[in-house]
Amino acid sequence: MSHSSKPIIGIIAGAGPYAGIDLLQKIHDQTIASRDQDHLTIIGWFQPNAIPDRTAFLLGQAAENPGEAIAGQALALAQAGAAVAAIPCNTAHASKIFKRVEERLANAGNPLIFLHLIRETGCFLQAHFPGAKRVGLLATAGTYQAGFYPALLGAFGVEVIVPQDEAVRRGIQAAIADTRFGIKATGSGTPQARGWLDAGITALQHQGAEAIILGCTEIPIMIQEREIAGMPIIDPTLILARALIREAAPQQLKPYPASSR
Amino acid sequence: MSHSSKPIIGIIAGAGPYAGIDLLQKIHDQTIASRDQDHLTIIGWFQPNAIPDRTAFLLGQAAENPGEAIAGQALALAQAGAAVAAIPCNTAHASKIFKRVEERLANAGNPLIFLHLIRETGCFLQAHFPGAKRVGLLATAGTYQAGFYPALLGAFGVEVIVPQDEAVRRGIQAAIADTRFGIKATGSGTPQARGWLDAGITALQHQGAEAIILGCTEIPIMIQEREIAGMPIIDPTLILARALIREAAPQQLKPYPASSR
Repeated sequence: MSHSSKPIIGIIAGAGPYAGIDLLQKIHDQTIASRDQDHLTIIGWFQPNAIPDRTAFLLGQAAENPGEAIAGQALALAQAGAAVAAIPCNTAHASKIFKRVEERLANAGNPLIFLHLIRETGCFLQAHFPGAKRVGLLATAGTYQAGFYPALLGAFGVEVIVPQDEAVRRGIQAAIADTRFGIKATGSGTPQARGWLDAGITALQHQGAEAIILGCTEIPIMIQEREIAGMPIIDPTLILARALIREAAPQQLKPYPASSR
Repeated sequence: MSHSSKPIIGIIAGAGPYAGIDLLQKIHDQTIASRDQDHLTIIGWFQPNAIPDRTAFLLGQAAENPGEAIAGQALALAQAGAAVAAIPCNTAHASKIFKRVEERLANAGNPLIFLHLIRETGCFLQAHFPGAKRVGLLATAGTYQAGFYPALLGAFGVEVIVPQDEAVRRGIQAAIADTRFGIKATGSGTPQARGWLDAGITALQHQGAEAIILGCTEIPIMIQEREIAGMPIIDPTLILARALIREAAPQQLKPYPASSR
């Protein structure tokens, strides 16, 4: 195997950091390798304090566009050698934020390939779950409010359903971001967080969902099942891991589905 | 909390990559933080294909000193902004390898602080397990052969015991590096790997060990217990995580012992 010529993968890993670690783990799990030296070159850039809260910006509670900091970290990764990059944060892919990242990279004239988490998810659904036409979205308040998921996945022929009950949406937000019991604060989640996520899944199934998208990268840290109540569970972090390997070393991408470890 | 002035942590994370991920996880778990932005700035540099097998070098089966590549990656981390760095690989701390790293950094005139995994472990034992005078070492063939652990921990008043039975030592090596069932190849380990590690722990206890050091950073991926058969289990990766936080943001270091998540 020739190693040195493979593109280097850059990960903006701090938003949030446990999601960054989850992506790093999944890249390694999805790579065909039997010894250290077979694994890919990856730079994980954890600089969370520089990236303002995405949800607060999308809800109009904060003025600073997180896209500025994300672009800055993408350029730092390119400077360090990365040729392909991504950020494992769904909310960062709201147009208001992601377009700012793209503008900044274009203005810098940087050739970095920056993958798009949601478009990769649409692409994956078409390939592997062509029957899933109505998918339920578990996500942060910012992602629901910004409404970019329905538009982006609509282009792939997928209808996105969000929980109608506002209490359920608030519960999902708390499961992610509550500073006492949420996944961001605990790194793994708590029974209370899991309870809110399960309530969201049940509500979405009652509304007609045929599959569930874990539309915040903290959620797959807590929900590791591939199927719940007969519905496939779609993990964009896993999809992004596979897309990054596809760009850097397609011959080392494990077949899908494969055992995750 | 002031963020921007905290030193950046650099991790040489590719030797092996699952140990690198384990260290990243443990740094976050040991940091006092309740939201993304509270976490530290860390660059995880995964470039395993550039670092030759440490054990093969120490056993005389390969000529190239891995210290050259490790120093190169340390300098790349410094270039990207890191002020304090470490490599979560015990075997890399054999003098033949680690001295080469230090020489290269000194020659480059680089002010990077490079922590020493084994000395940090000795320091930790003195502070938290002052009664443990005879500790058993689970490690790779290269670490046993190079014999740096007894000398380094001897300076801290700790006697290091290694398994007398060569079959047990070979089993531990296989648990780590076997390309079918070992931890490096599977990312999490298998019952067969666990069986060999347990056999090593039992043998060391029979030889008089009062505590067990997980002397290869792949092992704590599989052995997460804090105590086995009445003996404390010492995890150098956890110790290194805490030492890195101590250097970068001591006020955010959780008390020890704390729940790990």
